[in-house]
Amino acid sequence: MATVTEYDTIAAISTPPGEGGISIVRVSGDQAVEIAQKIYKGKDLAKVPTHTINYGHIYDPTDNSLVDEVMVSVMRAPKTFTREDVVEINTHGGIVPTNKVLQLLIGAGARMAEPGEFTKRAFLNGRIDLTEAESVMDLIRAKTDKAMQVAVNQLDGNLNHLISNLRQEILDALAQVEVNIDYPEYDTEQMTTKMLLEKAKLVGTNIDSLLKTADSGEILQHGLATAIVGKPNVGKSSLLNRLLDEDKAIVTDVAGTTRDVVEQYVNIDGVPLKLIDTAGVRDTEDKVEKIGVERSLKALSDADLVILVLDSSRKLEDDDIELLDATKDKRRIIIFNKNDLVPVITPNDVEQLKDDDIILVTSAIKNDGIDTIKATIGKIFNAGIEDSSTDVIITSARQAGLLRQAKENLNDVISGIEAGMPIDLVQIDMTSCWDTLGEITGESYPDELITQLFSQFCLGK
Amino acid sequence: MATVTEYDTIAAISTPPGEGGISIVRVSGDQAVEIAQKIYKGKDLAKVPTHTINYGHIYDPTDNSLVDEVMVSVMRAPKTFTREDVVEINTHGGIVPTNKVLQLLIGAGARMAEPGEFTKRAFLNGRIDLTEAESVMDLIRAKTDKAMQVAVNQLDGNLNHLISNLRQEILDALAQVEVNIDYPEYDTEQMTTKMLLEKAKLVGTNIDSLLKTADSGEILQHGLATAIVGKPNVGKSSLLNRLLDEDKAIVTDVAGTTRDVVEQYVNIDGVPLKLIDTAGVRDTEDKVEKIGVERSLKALSDADLVILVLDSSRKLEDDDIELLDATKDKRRIIIFNKNDLVPVITPNDVEQLKDDDIILVTSAIKNDGIDTIKATIGKIFNAGIEDSSTDVIITSARQAGLLRQAKENLNDVISGIEAGMPIDLVQIDMTSCWDTLGEITGESYPDELITQLFSQFCLGK
Repeated sequence: MATVTEYDTIAAISTPPGEGGISIVRVSGDQAVEIAQKIYKGKDLAKVPTHTINYGHIYDPTDNSLVDEVMVSVMRAPKTFTREDVVEINTHGGIVPTNKVLQLLIGAGARMAEPGEFTKRAFLNGRIDLTEAESVMDLIRAKTDKAMQVAVNQLDGNLNHLISNLRQEILDALAQVEVNIDYPEYDTEQMTTKMLLEKAKLVGTNIDSLLKTADSGEILQHGLATAIVGKPNVGKSSLLNRLLDEDKAIVTDVAGTTRDVVEQYVNIDGVPLKLIDTAGVRDTEDKVEKIGVERSLKALSDADLVILVLDSSRKLEDDDIELLDATKDKRRIIIFNKNDLVPVITPNDVEQLKDDDIILVTSAIKNDGIDTIKATIGKIFNAGIEDSSTDVIITSARQAGLLRQAKENLNDVISGIEAGMPIDLVQIDMTSCWDTLGEITGESYPDELITQLFSQFCLGK
Repeated sequence: MATVTEYDTIAAISTPPGEGGISIVRVSGDQAVEIAQKIYKGKDLAKVPTHTINYGHIYDPTDNSLVDEVMVSVMRAPKTFTREDVVEINTHGGIVPTNKVLQLLIGAGARMAEPGEFTKRAFLNGRIDLTEAESVMDLIRAKTDKAMQVAVNQLDGNLNHLISNLRQEILDALAQVEVNIDYPEYDTEQMTTKMLLEKAKLVGTNIDSLLKTADSGEILQHGLATAIVGKPNVGKSSLLNRLLDEDKAIVTDVAGTTRDVVEQYVNIDGVPLKLIDTAGVRDTEDKVEKIGVERSLKALSDADLVILVLDSSRKLEDDDIELLDATKDKRRIIIFNKNDLVPVITPNDVEQLKDDDIILVTSAIKNDGIDTIKATIGKIFNAGIEDSSTDVIITSARQAGLLRQAKENLNDVISGIEAGMPIDLVQIDMTSCWDTLGEITGESYPDELITQLFSQFCLGK
């Protein structure tokens, strides 16, 4: 699997970028201790016990100048994050000294780690499977407690065990087929196909149950991209403030890799709503109101959920109809707001409504109906999870895709048996299912997949 | 000095905020190990050896739910950052799990640390003096290698030793005065005043030498706030790009405490130029050019250095004169750019120039004269350091202020002796100098100073 060059010694800054009290430069590989020693004065790191923290100083070996006062953690293989020798240099947390320490390590013979390369090594060295590796990033990027719990459960190996059990079921079935072929007896073929059919259905049910969680898992991990739209003065900002304040919702600003992109998440009953195009909304309460129809339309393309606000105290106007038309293919909640005023329009007056629209009547200003909105969002999110009989949640599109593929393999098994196909052909489909499930945990995987998957990680992990 | 309540157990996230491979939650105080144990399952932390790293999991004790897989560093007093028991929980680096770990620690009995409180304890517990404490933040905020070296030297105690030596000189002199008073002999008074005078002059010379470095130290630490101004199309962006590209200058964006404030630093020959109002300049090359005179004027108020660019191939215009007038009280470099074209104006044609203006003739587009600009900036910065006979550099306004006050105390000593004042009055001024110098290292200090000083630190340090 792994080539020798993948096992050179790598280094990276593992803490978030920026100024802080402590930053960590992590080194992993056979030469980790030796390379660290070249720039460190304090103890003889080759001789300190494993998993110890050692005080000392980093010096630039080219001119012997002092760079930082540090604590150096020495962790020897195999009980480390990567299963290789790991040295972590804890610096005083500044950008310049931390980068300098990294540069000195590179100068001393380490290679700059690629994004996700430490975790990749943990996988290649067999410490974790692919689902656990993926959950590491899920955990780092978790937006709510619920997302964190799902990630940490997956990190604990729950999905890995579940998939491994399903693969074992398939393997047992295939072994039984072999036995039956080798020792043919009376009505064996009938018994074999019956057994295979039952097994395929059993595994299929389990996969269905997992797949039901995938939509919710995706929302949990990446947020429910939500656009709150409406013509000016329908009460968008009041509504947003209610959703924020009444819930004591945690708003998290997550800066993307480029400084320009700021994603704003609002935690509504554990569901991370990713607000689209409402940056700065909390600073300037009126700002949402000022967002015109044109800007609203622009915000719609990326939305998973549209909250379209109408003013029930005013007649439907062209702007409303334009927004109703523009969002007709979206999952949407239509809010008839301002029900504290004399109603001029009701849902019956709006012919653009679809059968699956969720229609709610509220008064944001009087805090009437806000709980229903929250509950509705929670219901959209929880739908898949409640339907499922598993407590493992699929959060990755990769995992979901492979599960769907495995399910197709099983369908082929079932239709093959029903069509009376020879057992050795059915066997092939069953084996494909076993392989596909193995890709989820990484027991069988193509190299490109691994490279592509870990490249999505952050630097230093 | 310290009250008992200052020694409760505190906790904070010590790594920079954001998503990363590792985040650290630090706990310090008598109860650190006990509190950490309440949320950690793995080993019995009370029994593990000091300075060891321990694998395990964090659980929420209220519902026993898994929060994160962690490495827990246990460091027992006194060989720790704070000289108290310290536990550092290394999490998987996400915002939500890291905050959750901190919340659980607070729930288990720790108090949220104030900014700088860990370093404050290191000071209160006598591990470091005030100059070393200040250098910790200098190190974290260092913008260039040079700034880093100055900070780390100060962290190593160089300024502390220098000030302590000066105080010892004063103490020796004062002791000698006492002896001479107790055992009066022939011409003792004359000997005493002579000795005091010499000592005051000696200490004064040392203080002067330190003070000469203060301006450069301030620049080194906080950057030389520089505005590049000029009417449109004089070559500002070409000039800036030359300064950036030709130097392979490191540009550091440092986000302030509020997201809006982004300070951009350019490393010119080790001098951190803090560019004023040129955000995004590297993305849009033409942007500088578009900055009109009005915006230039606005940028000037905060500038330590103005680089005013004139176009020598065009006649002086009203805009140029307005800028020359607006910057007449500033330290400035006047650039006669575009010397590759036929000159229309020369320095002689500009009557608004001052005697202390630095005038340079360049062609940014031809890369002519750029080295001179760089050297000039380097000279401005190095002036104080080269004049000084010490290799310690004063980077803090607090330290510089106290040094000036100590110098005044010494001047009072000298003028007192010269005016023939009684020796016990001169003694008082000499003692004041000793006290003032003690404030620099924190050997004598008022409580408010300490509170105010550490509040400028970042959280988790």
